[in-house]
Amino acid sequence: MKIVPIDLGERSYDIEIDQNALSRIGAAVESLGSVSRVALITDDNVEPLYAEVASQAIVERGLDLDAIVVPSGEQTKSLDYAEALWEQFLEIKIDRRSVAVALGGGVVGDLAGFVSATYARGIRYFQVPTTLLAQVDSSVGGKTAINLPSAKNMVGAFHQPSGVLIDPTVLNTLSDDQYRAGLGEVVKYGASLDENFFAYLEQNTEKVNARDPIALETVISRCCELKAEIVKKDERETSGLRALLNYGHTFGHALESRIGHGKLLHGFGVALGCSLAARLAFCLAQKGDDRFSDINESWIARQDKLFESLGLPTRLRDLPAVVGVEVDCSPEKLVELMSTDKKTEFGQLNFVLPRKIGDSFLVRNVSVSDVLDALHLQ
Amino acid sequence: MKIVPIDLGERSYDIEIDQNALSRIGAAVESLGSVSRVALITDDNVEPLYAEVASQAIVERGLDLDAIVVPSGEQTKSLDYAEALWEQFLEIKIDRRSVAVALGGGVVGDLAGFVSATYARGIRYFQVPTTLLAQVDSSVGGKTAINLPSAKNMVGAFHQPSGVLIDPTVLNTLSDDQYRAGLGEVVKYGASLDENFFAYLEQNTEKVNARDPIALETVISRCCELKAEIVKKDERETSGLRALLNYGHTFGHALESRIGHGKLLHGFGVALGCSLAARLAFCLAQKGDDRFSDINESWIARQDKLFESLGLPTRLRDLPAVVGVEVDCSPEKLVELMSTDKKTEFGQLNFVLPRKIGDSFLVRNVSVSDVLDALHLQ
Repeated sequence: MKIVPIDLGERSYDIEIDQNALSRIGAAVESLGSVSRVALITDDNVEPLYAEVASQAIVERGLDLDAIVVPSGEQTKSLDYAEALWEQFLEIKIDRRSVAVALGGGVVGDLAGFVSATYARGIRYFQVPTTLLAQVDSSVGGKTAINLPSAKNMVGAFHQPSGVLIDPTVLNTLSDDQYRAGLGEVVKYGASLDENFFAYLEQNTEKVNARDPIALETVISRCCELKAEIVKKDERETSGLRALLNYGHTFGHALESRIGHGKLLHGFGVALGCSLAARLAFCLAQKGDDRFSDINESWIARQDKLFESLGLPTRLRDLPAVVGVEVDCSPEKLVELMSTDKKTEFGQLNFVLPRKIGDSFLVRNVSVSDVLDALHLQ
Repeated sequence: MKIVPIDLGERSYDIEIDQNALSRIGAAVESLGSVSRVALITDDNVEPLYAEVASQAIVERGLDLDAIVVPSGEQTKSLDYAEALWEQFLEIKIDRRSVAVALGGGVVGDLAGFVSATYARGIRYFQVPTTLLAQVDSSVGGKTAINLPSAKNMVGAFHQPSGVLIDPTVLNTLSDDQYRAGLGEVVKYGASLDENFFAYLEQNTEKVNARDPIALETVISRCCELKAEIVKKDERETSGLRALLNYGHTFGHALESRIGHGKLLHGFGVALGCSLAARLAFCLAQKGDDRFSDINESWIARQDKLFESLGLPTRLRDLPAVVGVEVDCSPEKLVELMSTDKKTEFGQLNFVLPRKIGDSFLVRNVSVSDVLDALHLQ
């Protein structure tokens, strides 16, 4: 078992990475004290696999439990489902002393987290992530959200969980695509924040590909630690530091928008986005920007190689094979999507770009022509 | 001008009570720094009266402004209108550096506050309350919410404003009923928290009834100070202290539910609720509960007299005259409503009850028979 403490003053909590995490849910909820009842929220993919063991762990502690099952998939992260959950919370008499448990991937975590943040102006909740992506990213840091029809994650709240329970063995039932998508974010952490971790991944690709539980415990806990360090210093994304977690995300979001959220898995978008960001840094280096003097072709090849050895795409030309259809991802179209991104500040094109392996920084206001050059390099 | 500082660490802000508050909005927004644009949210009652002066104050500071007008009335505090506002925020390109201004009564403040709390996981906003009720109560303390069809304020967030700007002269255009409803909350503050303020109100009923701006500045700022002291110690309603603001509210909410929110104005419900709470304390005193030994008939008469001199009801039998229709407010029905109140903790009947004028405390788990006795006293 590994524990990653998230130090946020009165909102502090622990992330526990443990092969028996599911059966520890009841004890974790109970330890909060004064719990009137528990709502377990999961989706119809996860329910047949893990709801029973989770429910039993809660009930055997003498806690009153209701389970709520939502459809799996990005379309569930909507206002309609938030409303349905608020109404169901009312029906099952969830009050301010109740606790929600989000058992599932990012969609369940974000939706249940947002509903917990806003029901009765905020109730306590646990994240029990069951995808690699959620375990290393979305369950950590207190971001909750739902999508508006035209803008992903546009409505949400910062609401820290009371704890995060991660069982790496649940990843054994994850599809190959979902697993690899999670690895996209994992490589991102190493490439942008921690050279030693990047090297660990290079040296352990076989174990990681085989979902070795010991290697996964190391991988997940290191990602959580890296994210925790940043969240601690910039909990509500105000100082700009938290933006460092977005290496690969400016390009990645544009690709996801272009191809369709859910069609291109987020982690695949991030892998491609990191590859493109590296090329953008390379273009800037070629033009004499000495902030990127360490970024050369062999640097790009090293990053590409790690992504590829974990089954992740690094070239736009790989996209049809990844998503199963031809798509028009012309550089001009992608730049247009990035410029009109609803979250763009003042219409600027901002990117996290690498200085070297494990070291990156936010670059504001990159010119359209530099971005186009990078995309044409692909 | 009076300033009431709300001391909440990094979430601190000032309440300014000033006859020129509306024309100071622009300067207040500008002083936050890094403002990309401003959304002014108001309702169709307030818009023709005060939107122009507020808009001008914002625009003349060089800030980009869009105004959004919602229908007045409690039915606007709904998920549908929250969704409409989120979508409009997107359309007018509100981003994390934008600021919302809520110009209106409690409905506008609660709705715009909730939308600001959740759009892009929280943007900055100002409260510019235009009803007495909002000026002394709902605009202070950071509570935001919308209603679910069957539960008032059930979905919301604690989201402190960047400032509250209160102009007592806008009350000149308030209807007599709306003004008196605000006075219901005003008397509540004196009766439950501050004997000197209660005495001030007794000595100044004429000025208060005449909406004298100097008296109103004193009244509003004292209420804000009293609320601020409590909010400072119990920002998120966790210690139970904030419950002290709810003198008269357990009975009041039941009456509002019974008669219909908006039909019985909240402040009238509170006035009746305080009168009933005093009678409940009296009943308990009669039964030998020495926590209420100071509560006798002359005590009740003193509280009743102040409410009545400000045109507020103190007896259930006054209700038909107040709401214009006959209503069945039998004691049994009201107890049933209080017991099934969605926010009741574990089904308990909890009341804030007076020890003496200006001194009250939370009493948990009052028996149904004691509550019935108090209601029959009316």
